[in-house]
Amino acid sequence: MIQKDSVYHRMGQNWSYAYDEATLHIRLRTGRGNVARVDLVHGDKYGWDHTHGVQPMELLASDAQYDYWQAAVQPKYRRLAYYFALHNEDEALYYLEKGFFDAPPAIIYEGLFDFPFLNREDVHLMPEWVKDAVFYQIFPERFANGDPSLSPENAEPWGGVPTPRNFFGGDLQGVLEHLDYLNALGINAIYFTPVFEATTNHKYDTRDYFKVDPHFGTNASLKKLVDACHERGIRVLLDGVFNHCGYTFPPYVDVMENGQASKYANWFHVRDWPPRVEDGIPTYDTFAFEPIMPKFNTENPEVREYLLSVGRYWIQEVGIDGWRLDVANEVSHSFWREFRKAVKESNPDAFIVGEIMHDALPWLTGDQFDAVMNYPLLNLALNFFARGTTDSKQFSEAISGMLARYPQQITESAFNLLDSHDTERFLTHCGGDVRRLRLALLYLMTFQGTPCIYYGDEIGMEGAYDPDNRRCMEWNPDRQDQELLAFYRWAISLRKAYPALRGSRIRFRELPGEPALLAYDRWDEQEHLLIVMNSSAAPVKGALPAAEDASDWVDVQSGERCSVSGGKLSFSLPAFGFMVLRRE
Amino acid sequence: MIQKDSVYHRMGQNWSYAYDEATLHIRLRTGRGNVARVDLVHGDKYGWDHTHGVQPMELLASDAQYDYWQAAVQPKYRRLAYYFALHNEDEALYYLEKGFFDAPPAIIYEGLFDFPFLNREDVHLMPEWVKDAVFYQIFPERFANGDPSLSPENAEPWGGVPTPRNFFGGDLQGVLEHLDYLNALGINAIYFTPVFEATTNHKYDTRDYFKVDPHFGTNASLKKLVDACHERGIRVLLDGVFNHCGYTFPPYVDVMENGQASKYANWFHVRDWPPRVEDGIPTYDTFAFEPIMPKFNTENPEVREYLLSVGRYWIQEVGIDGWRLDVANEVSHSFWREFRKAVKESNPDAFIVGEIMHDALPWLTGDQFDAVMNYPLLNLALNFFARGTTDSKQFSEAISGMLARYPQQITESAFNLLDSHDTERFLTHCGGDVRRLRLALLYLMTFQGTPCIYYGDEIGMEGAYDPDNRRCMEWNPDRQDQELLAFYRWAISLRKAYPALRGSRIRFRELPGEPALLAYDRWDEQEHLLIVMNSSAAPVKGALPAAEDASDWVDVQSGERCSVSGGKLSFSLPAFGFMVLRRE
Repeated sequence: MIQKDSVYHRMGQNWSYAYDEATLHIRLRTGRGNVARVDLVHGDKYGWDHTHGVQPMELLASDAQYDYWQAAVQPKYRRLAYYFALHNEDEALYYLEKGFFDAPPAIIYEGLFDFPFLNREDVHLMPEWVKDAVFYQIFPERFANGDPSLSPENAEPWGGVPTPRNFFGGDLQGVLEHLDYLNALGINAIYFTPVFEATTNHKYDTRDYFKVDPHFGTNASLKKLVDACHERGIRVLLDGVFNHCGYTFPPYVDVMENGQASKYANWFHVRDWPPRVEDGIPTYDTFAFEPIMPKFNTENPEVREYLLSVGRYWIQEVGIDGWRLDVANEVSHSFWREFRKAVKESNPDAFIVGEIMHDALPWLTGDQFDAVMNYPLLNLALNFFARGTTDSKQFSEAISGMLARYPQQITESAFNLLDSHDTERFLTHCGGDVRRLRLALLYLMTFQGTPCIYYGDEIGMEGAYDPDNRRCMEWNPDRQDQELLAFYRWAISLRKAYPALRGSRIRFRELPGEPALLAYDRWDEQEHLLIVMNSSAAPVKGALPAAEDASDWVDVQSGERCSVSGGKLSFSLPAFGFMVLRRE
Repeated sequence: MIQKDSVYHRMGQNWSYAYDEATLHIRLRTGRGNVARVDLVHGDKYGWDHTHGVQPMELLASDAQYDYWQAAVQPKYRRLAYYFALHNEDEALYYLEKGFFDAPPAIIYEGLFDFPFLNREDVHLMPEWVKDAVFYQIFPERFANGDPSLSPENAEPWGGVPTPRNFFGGDLQGVLEHLDYLNALGINAIYFTPVFEATTNHKYDTRDYFKVDPHFGTNASLKKLVDACHERGIRVLLDGVFNHCGYTFPPYVDVMENGQASKYANWFHVRDWPPRVEDGIPTYDTFAFEPIMPKFNTENPEVREYLLSVGRYWIQEVGIDGWRLDVANEVSHSFWREFRKAVKESNPDAFIVGEIMHDALPWLTGDQFDAVMNYPLLNLALNFFARGTTDSKQFSEAISGMLARYPQQITESAFNLLDSHDTERFLTHCGGDVRRLRLALLYLMTFQGTPCIYYGDEIGMEGAYDPDNRRCMEWNPDRQDQELLAFYRWAISLRKAYPALRGSRIRFRELPGEPALLAYDRWDEQEHLLIVMNSSAAPVKGALPAAEDASDWVDVQSGERCSVSGGKLSFSLPAFGFMVLRRE
């Protein structure tokens, strides 16, 4: 019996959307293993007779509960009316907007699902460069001290123990001096945590949105750095903190001094005047309950114009390639829609990445962000690769569910990370076991989305939660894990060499009885790769089904051919070993 | 066993949204009858300990497959992290963003559902007047001929047979002269189909967006009419045709004359130059495949600004109260977002109603329309009241499903209709049986949403599909169904008298074995009504459960008390009879 309760489709969201200016994606959810075949029956509602067709849907992904089917359709007149025909051997069920039926609809124009018109303006297109980007995240105070004359007076010697409030003197000149290092690593984009003037070492408490923090350099030195990055093919994202300012931000200072008489009184959300803290709770809205980070009132047109002008300024004046947006989900959708317009008008190729740790679809509808920081992926990687609390089946099912939850262009551009300045370092989660980190990194580099490496991960830096995750970058080669660094370089180069690794096609192999073994195919029209990983301390011997004509699997590291016989590809992997195979 | 496959919630849409500036609604779907009780466990993610609480969810509605639960929460700091606790007698299941669990989460800040911040700018607030509005739809060419000097030369005598192309001379003066009639009927808002200059009788092929059609009057006479309506407490909506223009629209004429050299070449979507019709298919995008209605290219900023200026003009110059938008779902979301801004800046109380016949949620997210024409409701009413092809259980379950699919402010303001210029008249669907129409109208007037009456329905006018549904209004009292007219007046006055009939609380009674009997409670904090209808030709005697303390049910028509005994409210209804009871 086809389980109706498992079937889901609703116009919009991840279920029906424009993938590009000519193509619609239509998806359907069914119970896992419950339906053998699904056809999408579609046509133009104004001319069904001369436009209709039947298209088998492809199985896009399967999670623990459900199968997800997808069809890509290019309707000639950009309109699509459709319904689903679900088939099992002895059973058929027809699913229309108006419900389930045992027979196909007789009257075609009534009660079908409807994608009324594919308007180009609504298509969520990503900047071209994003799909090839490999990001590197820099926390400027801790990356490199290139100009000690700028360092705070109380800066401590490089490499000391980070505390919530101490400084070590990292600056933009320090980054400039290490671009060779970043080029050699292979990254081609940098995400900087905030660089504007502020009091803290993390600079999330902005004082002046139009000025680089003097301890980091000047606006001119930022421009010089961005130019140098561009010359080397490296894009630059800055961190925009538009949810809240810092307590030294002049309009806020004015409100604290003049109360309701301040001309900035309406720039913030003061619930009870004068703004103050009572029992640990500010009487004005803030980030969390943090008194030094007052939340902006973006309903106020003055505030809105001020923040939009910031968004434009750094693109126009300094040439940055986009924004990472802090606490992005607490700012209004309405503001972000205007922000996107302002940014894309300044640079149509700008990339907009929001910080959202939860389901982020309401911000990824094409009118707000291009991507969000993929914390859900981070958690899945932690559980499987670092902690070993999930098995490969759970991991691959959860990944599959994630892919099904978003439009394809969103998962193709997701900002994928293993850690950041807001998490424990991945290697620390691994208990320092570099072999676990390597597998996770290999996964990131062979998966769709835009990978981002947190500075220092590549040389084996560790760190617990803030402030320990913000240690000074280790520049002494003897203290860097050179083997790990070489692995990072290799994994990045692998991603660059094989476009299929950046594409959207992925299929996880089912490996019953092998909870630590993860295997998945990655392919496009040109090539096919197979990645196999052993996420356990026990060596594994195994075999995977391989079609007879697929005898030409080559290990991309060693160049050796694999043994395929009897339709089986046999392999043996050491503890935490892996192999990347390519079909010749 | 709790059926996990039936459980659904996803941040956003109709599942979590701001109802007003202080209140969030959270909803959950479960299998029908599968879960006894659901608790919403919630708190502020930054201060769970001093904010958390447990709130039982109310059963909002049940359709054939599912139960829908709702909780209204007013989070003090406008943030809400939450999960669901589902209970049956011997079973509990906890549903978090990260999945299902057998025990409540130990670590509260990870993996919960999250409504990050209720920003006032994002709240979809309706104009205050809408919830009390009763609309009347006028097709101006057919309502009344008040100034024969304006009539087209070939106008036929009033009351003739409508054809696709003939004229009868209806005009704005005709409407002006019948405002007493409309006041007496009780309506307080008019929706006019297009009044701008065009060649057809329906005027959906606009020639001049800034000019009233000379056969209808002048811009001044429209202003006079709107002013007169306002003096009588009647709001006015005009029909905006922004998907396409008519073939006499000067920019289109210019394109036809000058081809790609036209300065308006980019105002339309020409797929193949020169624009022409081949094998019945225009080589340029149109409404449907209709050559005389070329689709606008709203991606072109000139087109956009032109159409936005139309949106503003009639509000600012003539004072209309909003727009009904033709073929609204084929125009880009991006355009509608700007349109809403332009309209609401011109008049924050303007009401924006889109013509969408399908699931319309992607346009009802607060940034585009306030309402859509509720064709799904029309179809349900047709099947149950007019055709009798569904029973009261199917009808009430489908209505319930519809209520669950949209945020509450959307269903409270839905533009509910029984017919329009685009459908057969409801009475004709009823085979002329006025008793069926009466029940449907009573349903409309005792249900949430904004009811709209198509001109002439109230006097028993009939009409098949276009052009027959556009007959001239019958003004001869002898040929009007006066009894029906009196019923319409009474039903409208009933709606006005009892605010609970306009509110969102509805519960359908289960009446096994009585497929034609529909009974539902409508209530708010002040009052409670019970409506019972017999949608069949056979008289019915029955009894409904009524609490003993509810012995004071009074029939609002007769003023008579009802007999309640043994916890039963007994009644007897004639063929197609009804009763509206009020608890004293």
